[in-house]
Amino acid sequence: MTDTCPVDLTANLIRCPSVTPEEGGALELLAGVLGDAGFECTRVDRNGTPNLFARWGAKGAAKSLGFNGHTDVVPVGDVADWTVDPFGAEIKGPNMYGRGACDMKSGVAAFAAAAVDFVQTQKPDGAVILTITGDEEGPARDGTVALLDWMDAQGERMTDCLVGEPTCPNEMGEMIKIGRRGSLTAKFTIIGQQGHVAYPHRAKTPMAPMVRLMDRLASHTLDEGTDHFDPSTLQITTIDTGNAATNVIPNQVKSTVNIRFNDAHTGDSLIAWMRAEADKVAKEFGVEVQMTTNISGDSFVTEPGAFSQMIVSAVQAVTGKTPELSTSGGTSDARFVKNHCPVVECGLVGTSMHQVDEYVVVEQIRQLKDIYTRILTDYFA
Amino acid sequence: MTDTCPVDLTANLIRCPSVTPEEGGALELLAGVLGDAGFECTRVDRNGTPNLFARWGAKGAAKSLGFNGHTDVVPVGDVADWTVDPFGAEIKGPNMYGRGACDMKSGVAAFAAAAVDFVQTQKPDGAVILTITGDEEGPARDGTVALLDWMDAQGERMTDCLVGEPTCPNEMGEMIKIGRRGSLTAKFTIIGQQGHVAYPHRAKTPMAPMVRLMDRLASHTLDEGTDHFDPSTLQITTIDTGNAATNVIPNQVKSTVNIRFNDAHTGDSLIAWMRAEADKVAKEFGVEVQMTTNISGDSFVTEPGAFSQMIVSAVQAVTGKTPELSTSGGTSDARFVKNHCPVVECGLVGTSMHQVDEYVVVEQIRQLKDIYTRILTDYFA
Repeated sequence: MTDTCPVDLTANLIRCPSVTPEEGGALELLAGVLGDAGFECTRVDRNGTPNLFARWGAKGAAKSLGFNGHTDVVPVGDVADWTVDPFGAEIKGPNMYGRGACDMKSGVAAFAAAAVDFVQTQKPDGAVILTITGDEEGPARDGTVALLDWMDAQGERMTDCLVGEPTCPNEMGEMIKIGRRGSLTAKFTIIGQQGHVAYPHRAKTPMAPMVRLMDRLASHTLDEGTDHFDPSTLQITTIDTGNAATNVIPNQVKSTVNIRFNDAHTGDSLIAWMRAEADKVAKEFGVEVQMTTNISGDSFVTEPGAFSQMIVSAVQAVTGKTPELSTSGGTSDARFVKNHCPVVECGLVGTSMHQVDEYVVVEQIRQLKDIYTRILTDYFA
Repeated sequence: MTDTCPVDLTANLIRCPSVTPEEGGALELLAGVLGDAGFECTRVDRNGTPNLFARWGAKGAAKSLGFNGHTDVVPVGDVADWTVDPFGAEIKGPNMYGRGACDMKSGVAAFAAAAVDFVQTQKPDGAVILTITGDEEGPARDGTVALLDWMDAQGERMTDCLVGEPTCPNEMGEMIKIGRRGSLTAKFTIIGQQGHVAYPHRAKTPMAPMVRLMDRLASHTLDEGTDHFDPSTLQITTIDTGNAATNVIPNQVKSTVNIRFNDAHTGDSLIAWMRAEADKVAKEFGVEVQMTTNISGDSFVTEPGAFSQMIVSAVQAVTGKTPELSTSGGTSDARFVKNHCPVVECGLVGTSMHQVDEYVVVEQIRQLKDIYTRILTDYFA
């Protein structure tokens, strides 16, 4: 029986300087480890973005458990701020340090180690597929999306997929994620007519309608939360005029609003609501309200069922904790995978992600491998 | 009988390049003209700001008609934009062109010409006093205020005062001003706590309370106007955050509000009202609302009476029009003079003040001298 060490593999991956968009040797390292264990590995690069597809077992198998992750990391910032080599994978006390230590080279290593051992010892009746991208932290246009496009074209299929991003806020095992809120940004410009503050009847202020519109949007209760989601939230991120003269009514003002929304809405329904509110204010004040929008992602949820229950059981068995099925947090590539098959995110603690002296608790890498091994076992049982 | 030409005097004053704070020869020119007619002239400069005090007749006379004006002018801007020499006093058709042509070298020239002729021919039983500053367009800290301070110290007294600023919006004779609204600027800073838009419960936005506060201030009806005043107005002049990140809740936002207010309020009462509104919002949202204020001037009014009626009659006699007794418009040095004695503003049409190719209708200079002559005659009758 093989016993691949996920800690060593994490360290080796950290030593690859794979800052987006650099491959840095990370995908090649993985391809070597997986290839040695019988995985069929294919580089699915698109527009210079490096991606790796690896499958053990037959293409189109009835049961194909997938895993999605990334080997690229965010920049280290000023190296002088670090107390360790950001690409050194140094272990001090209980922790291993380095860029990507928690986000998410440890997750990739834990699953790869689990999968390599599992397929070699258990030879499951099905397929195990890894889709690993070199651009999750960047524009992400040619990363996981490119892998999924290629799989569709090739007839490659995952029946369910794990994403190995850190999912625990503080303690190992406390949370898995079954969906994410959507994110939408709207930029508003109100055009009035400049004039002297002493003669407001000869001007048309854009300021009063802007604060009215922003107050209406910010004070509106979007929803009270849904079965799997917290209430949607709207935040005004900026309002800017740039008028230095205290005796001049400015001719325009700009603002930006961001909404994180649950499955009670779609990006389009929220845009329609904001447009209607903007039109109301435009009419009330006799001004022009311009609005441009960008939907970063709609909300999605993988309804709790056999797959998520299997993951909950594995986490319980390894950590003794019952993880919350959450939909909180920022976006991840799960927003792309959900278009392909049911997807659940399960990883370790993410407190230091993107920070100086990013680290992972070494013991959590071993626990995560154990969790993934248990999921693999149950999935093909 | 002397017959001083107010048009020539206006032209000579325009040819003095007296852009604030430069004296430019303008006050000395006036002192020469007035001194020749028997006025006792004193330069009352303070902190480098040039000012001229001129009195004909006895100090402390029971009847002392005053006149307040300024010889300084705003900058010409880009000379290339002018079609004439800004200091050339060129006459084309019915108009004389130049910086200060309407604001307000013509007004000063018209009164000086009227006064010189009047005192020499009529030898009135009383005093005629001119207080002319070289800084009305600038900070105005050492201009008319310095003249009034000096007069108090010297025991000099005007019993009533004319201000010669342009007061007619479109046609000669249509308006005089018996007061002005007050002006108050308030700057607000709301301090919240920065955070990620996806986790608003871990942050404290300053944006929602700012738009609520601004909406409450801007939508409040301050009053419906008073006997001599239009309704007070409040304008938001700027709101600024400077947050470029659409995924970050900013930690602070700033805004500025300007109020032009009538005699239903004082600067202090309005500050108290805004502070109370700010405190309400601070409590509702659990944020800190900072406020700094600056009262440029409180409102004032010279109640209509014998003095204003004398001016109305003079305008009627010369122009055939009955002038409106207005309190509209921006501030003038009348806001200082009103602390010394009753003050009324009466001048010509101000449409081109501060503009490129500033001009005065030559005939209006003659009419204004006639109006001032009539007032002098009636005042000492």
